[in-house]
Amino acid sequence: MNPNSIIQPPNTQVPPVVGVVMGSSSDWDVMQHAVHVLKQFGIPHEYRVVSAHRMPDDMFAYAEEAGPRGLQAIIAGAGGAAHLPGMLAAKTTVPVLGVPVPSRHLHGQDSLLSIVQMPRGVPVATFAIGESGAVNAALFAVAQLALGDADLATALNAYRRSQTKAARQMELP
Amino acid sequence: MNPNSIIQPPNTQVPPVVGVVMGSSSDWDVMQHAVHVLKQFGIPHEYRVVSAHRMPDDMFAYAEEAGPRGLQAIIAGAGGAAHLPGMLAAKTTVPVLGVPVPSRHLHGQDSLLSIVQMPRGVPVATFAIGESGAVNAALFAVAQLALGDADLATALNAYRRSQTKAARQMELP
Amino acid sequence: MNPNSIIQPPNTQVPPVVGVVMGSSSDWDVMQHAVHVLKQFGIPHEYRVVSAHRMPDDMFAYAEEAGPRGLQAIIAGAGGAAHLPGMLAAKTTVPVLGVPVPSRHLHGQDSLLSIVQMPRGVPVATFAIGESGAVNAALFAVAQLALGDADLATALNAYRRSQTKAARQMELP
Amino acid sequence: MNPNSIIQPPNTQVPPVVGVVMGSSSDWDVMQHAVHVLKQFGIPHEYRVVSAHRMPDDMFAYAEEAGPRGLQAIIAGAGGAAHLPGMLAAKTTVPVLGVPVPSRHLHGQDSLLSIVQMPRGVPVATFAIGESGAVNAALFAVAQLALGDADLATALNAYRRSQTKAARQMELP
Amino acid sequence: MNPNSIIQPPNTQVPPVVGVVMGSSSDWDVMQHAVHVLKQFGIPHEYRVVSAHRMPDDMFAYAEEAGPRGLQAIIAGAGGAAHLPGMLAAKTTVPVLGVPVPSRHLHGQDSLLSIVQMPRGVPVATFAIGESGAVNAALFAVAQLALGDADLATALNAYRRSQTKAARQMELP
Amino acid sequence: MNPNSIIQPPNTQVPPVVGVVMGSSSDWDVMQHAVHVLKQFGIPHEYRVVSAHRMPDDMFAYAEEAGPRGLQAIIAGAGGAAHLPGMLAAKTTVPVLGVPVPSRHLHGQDSLLSIVQMPRGVPVATFAIGESGAVNAALFAVAQLALGDADLATALNAYRRSQTKAARQMELP
Amino acid sequence: MNPNSIIQPPNTQVPPVVGVVMGSSSDWDVMQHAVHVLKQFGIPHEYRVVSAHRMPDDMFAYAEEAGPRGLQAIIAGAGGAAHLPGMLAAKTTVPVLGVPVPSRHLHGQDSLLSIVQMPRGVPVATFAIGESGAVNAALFAVAQLALGDADLATALNAYRRSQTKAARQMELP
Amino acid sequence: MNPNSIIQPPNTQVPPVVGVVMGSSSDWDVMQHAVHVLKQFGIPHEYRVVSAHRMPDDMFAYAEEAGPRGLQAIIAGAGGAAHLPGMLAAKTTVPVLGVPVPSRHLHGQDSLLSIVQMPRGVPVATFAIGESGAVNAALFAVAQLALGDADLATALNAYRRSQTKAARQMELP
Repeated sequence: MNPNSIIQPPNTQVPPVVGVVMGSSSDWDVMQHAVHVLKQFGIPHEYRVVSAHRMPDDMFAYAEEAGPRGLQAIIAGAGGAAHLPGMLAAKTTVPVLGVPVPSRHLHGQDSLLSIVQMPRGVPVATFAIGESGAVNAALFAVAQLALGDADLATALNAYRRSQTKAARQMELP
Repeated sequence: MNPNSIIQPPNTQVPPVVGVVMGSSSDWDVMQHAVHVLKQFGIPHEYRVVSAHRMPDDMFAYAEEAGPRGLQAIIAGAGGAAHLPGMLAAKTTVPVLGVPVPSRHLHGQDSLLSIVQMPRGVPVATFAIGESGAVNAALFAVAQLALGDADLATALNAYRRSQTKAARQMELP
Repeated sequence: MNPNSIIQPPNTQVPPVVGVVMGSSSDWDVMQHAVHVLKQFGIPHEYRVVSAHRMPDDMFAYAEEAGPRGLQAIIAGAGGAAHLPGMLAAKTTVPVLGVPVPSRHLHGQDSLLSIVQMPRGVPVATFAIGESGAVNAALFAVAQLALGDADLATALNAYRRSQTKAARQMELP
Repeated sequence: MNPNSIIQPPNTQVPPVVGVVMGSSSDWDVMQHAVHVLKQFGIPHEYRVVSAHRMPDDMFAYAEEAGPRGLQAIIAGAGGAAHLPGMLAAKTTVPVLGVPVPSRHLHGQDSLLSIVQMPRGVPVATFAIGESGAVNAALFAVAQLALGDADLATALNAYRRSQTKAARQMELP
Repeated sequence: MNPNSIIQPPNTQVPPVVGVVMGSSSDWDVMQHAVHVLKQFGIPHEYRVVSAHRMPDDMFAYAEEAGPRGLQAIIAGAGGAAHLPGMLAAKTTVPVLGVPVPSRHLHGQDSLLSIVQMPRGVPVATFAIGESGAVNAALFAVAQLALGDADLATALNAYRRSQTKAARQMELP
Repeated sequence: MNPNSIIQPPNTQVPPVVGVVMGSSSDWDVMQHAVHVLKQFGIPHEYRVVSAHRMPDDMFAYAEEAGPRGLQAIIAGAGGAAHLPGMLAAKTTVPVLGVPVPSRHLHGQDSLLSIVQMPRGVPVATFAIGESGAVNAALFAVAQLALGDADLATALNAYRRSQTKAARQMELP
Repeated sequence: MNPNSIIQPPNTQVPPVVGVVMGSSSDWDVMQHAVHVLKQFGIPHEYRVVSAHRMPDDMFAYAEEAGPRGLQAIIAGAGGAAHLPGMLAAKTTVPVLGVPVPSRHLHGQDSLLSIVQMPRGVPVATFAIGESGAVNAALFAVAQLALGDADLATALNAYRRSQTKAARQMELP
Repeated sequence: MNPNSIIQPPNTQVPPVVGVVMGSSSDWDVMQHAVHVLKQFGIPHEYRVVSAHRMPDDMFAYAEEAGPRGLQAIIAGAGGAAHLPGMLAAKTTVPVLGVPVPSRHLHGQDSLLSIVQMPRGVPVATFAIGESGAVNAALFAVAQLALGDADLATALNAYRRSQTKAARQMELP
């Protein structure tokens, strides 16, 4: 095993299939919404801080081990010069889903461009700035997994129907 | 079958697993790069014009039939007020990959925001503006499919290695 | 009648001529200003949540029935990847007036571009971001209706004169 | 009649119901697309240069006489600090449709904001930057007029259907 | 005298040489900083609300009378689609100094572009967004007047020296 | 005289009252339009390259001598991190008129912000990006001078009238 | 010594090798973070207000004396039309590190462009908007100095290791 | 030695002290300007393609060996989601100078934000978009080295003087 490995027992009892990583614990406010969705769907997952800039070797180790460890998607949130999603994608072919975390002064415009404008050859699937993006990255991972899991597909369809129902029932004053 | 259906024999002999759609034939310059990658990897695919604004019923039909027809990803390119990816995603749980096509005056900044800033609940995986985004959306679809296809995984890894090799061999004057 | 129809008794006793729709009940803070203007002018109207992304079939049904039901304008407010106005316009020739609702991180810049940058062939009349846009969309609908209604024209002119008078009487310290 | 009046025999033999105005003859490249649509639908119209900044009195006269002369919509194109649509709207209750003409250095971002960000009380219906906006402003005027003109409504529906058909028939290589 | 005239006894006992106008009383928070500077230098001035959009005739009258009334500069503050400075400039050759008032959602980026991007032929001297711009527009007016007024020139130089002194004496913890 | 002085015989035979300076000879394409206007009005003027970054001492000398030499306005064009107008203004109370020269990659958005966003206390009157801004800065200088010169005022009014006439005579196809 | 000199006894007992300057005492909230880092590494330093616009001669004197006084880096923070870093760089070859201080309305976008977009020939090393930029400018100065100071290099490496350790130990709920 | 090493004999006969790296050979048009400056000053240097995304291990190896190999500065150019400078900086304390290469659709705005908005703890000194930035990054490296090299300091001062002289001699038509 890579000596730089930071891989520890995951937050779930079964091996995780989705990893949620973020550049700092301050990103938790946003990224917890991804975790919440994964929990809701019973997707085995793990979440941890992996900083591209302060823990570059750990980040590379994380990406290298993602495939062998059975991860089928990595949801990576980062803000500002948000290099985490793109560098993970450079080191693994496991699909990387990037979430632009709002930055203090530019409100996530920098995060969005740093994540989405990847050069040809190394894709990062990018979602909206902030909480909506975190939720949607997780739902996208669920949809990916549901392609090969009929029960999950049923659950996802139920989720979407209940979402539609909730919207229909929204009341205005 | 939905009477609005525009589903015709796909461009491949086997049932397509990836659909590439775009709002206008003028998007082909960009979107052909996605098709080229899919061809390179031998992914059964189809491509066609589906305009959200000028063919809304066809678009809904396309999205509704995507799952039943066996599509595992839809790559949708659109420019300006680019509603195609988001509206497809509203009608199917098949993963939708959005490619912002450069617009004439705003250079794709409008396309990018219209695609990536989806509300929570309906995800669109967004890629870079223009050709790089088209290539990367297709590579992302390949990576998704490779999760359950060892041969494709091997091919993708070879592609990435050859990409690395090509970069290493780039010469400067 | 379309089985997806969400058309219910309108909020007024006479058939509505203007419909005010919005993507979420959270848009009410902004969109109520449109409703208030319509009330002020005694325009029969209705208002409800119609989400393009979470209620796509309802949205299509709403657009399809707009003309037959006698609507002469639809005021549609949405934020972020604001697809509601443009998709309604794709399904009806009843004039659609779009109001960009301020988004959390980009302050409505995304909403504005997603609404205004429509491709040729499917127009959406777009107004300012936020409350001013909601008020003005309603005033624009009033002006449209006033073209064929002398009493309304008189009322609109009175409104404008009183607005001028109020501005003239504004006091500075 | 206002001594500043620039009102001359219109470009059509019947009294115009739509006026197309622009700040400079250099805007014709864009604005001719609005005129073309009006011609296509047989809408009596006129078009001329009315500069807000170089012909302010003429502009006011134009706005003041618009209603009495029977105009039911004014389509106004302008670039940069594009004051023409907003100032016309300040002087008339005839619906004003604004078209942001692309500017040399900022590509119409300035034109768009100067037109769309009107304060509450004086609405301008804004369309996309450039040719698409010109086409759509004209189509919007047609849709407005079609509300009270069954033949025009039929023509507009035919236009939309033929547009859908053309999109469906778009071929890709 | 123009029947639309809103010219009333100025706020000073001697005829004003600088007029400060703004589109709404809500602009006072910003524009009072211009007035304060003019007071400090003893410049005869007036200030009032003149809305381009809600009081267009008053605005034209104000501009037309500015020269005859002896104004040597007009400081005009406006937000959003800020047409006030540019339209005043279209109607008078008295120098117009524009102050972009911060707008609610776009923070004055719209105000700035609407004011500064004037077409050739009709200049508006533009200053920074908000309070700094209001102060500087007034200081610029003072500098203009000081060209022909030795006492004012002396006072302006003293102001600048004292400003330098204050900056030099700024203490850090 | 300051040993750093670059003051040479001006380009006119009488002492110049307006100085036109620019950061590089490559700015001439834009700034010549200011010079042309000054010539048209017979304003004694000079023009030269004064680079804030490559000739800082010359720039300070230019600013220091501007008042004593009788300049009544300085028109300064610069691109990118355009410091020239602001630094001249820091060193003289002669009115400084800034012209944002279009930059290669950001099209003058950087130039505009660097010039217009001056801190309180040191004003720079800013005009539009590029040629329009150069023309308008010169016209503004003319307007300033015309306040104390009846002949010039007459000429400026004639210029404006002829501009109006030319706009009125613009023909459309 | 230059009579404009503002050079006073530095804030440290040994001659400073890094100078931290800012345009106003209001920049201290941001710039103190640079000072804090320098303290942490025991770098002899000084800090003071030097305003480009209100103290231009002092600024030039500061830059001129920077080299002779032994400064090896100048960290300059400024907001809005942030001319301080660029003008210091125009007057000295001592490396200038620019920190864009967030501005009130544009959140530092103006500060960033005014600092980073320097013309060829006069470099300013630019860092992130706000506190992160201040910290990083100081760390960059430390890294520069560490190239010739083994002890400092050791300290910097320890700092980086401890930073990595802290990131690794970040806990999520 | 790291098995991933791409370190080859440098482009100079003496060990390089400055390394110029870029993400692709297509960046050479911009980055050659940095190389040209280093040559002009006789700085031993090397230049090569090191892609963060396609050669991540090589990039890490390059950064790790930079210090031991005696590099005193790394100039890194990259476009779009420009991760190269930031990731090098994450792996070495050798000063990293980032050059935003213009991107096809966003003209380098994405490159600039991706490079400059680094989180606290890992600095990248950022320069202007494009050629000017490449030249200035090299000049900054020269200035850094000149702090400890009197001959180089002399050469740099001569360069600056000759630059001033050239600017002074610029002629206008």
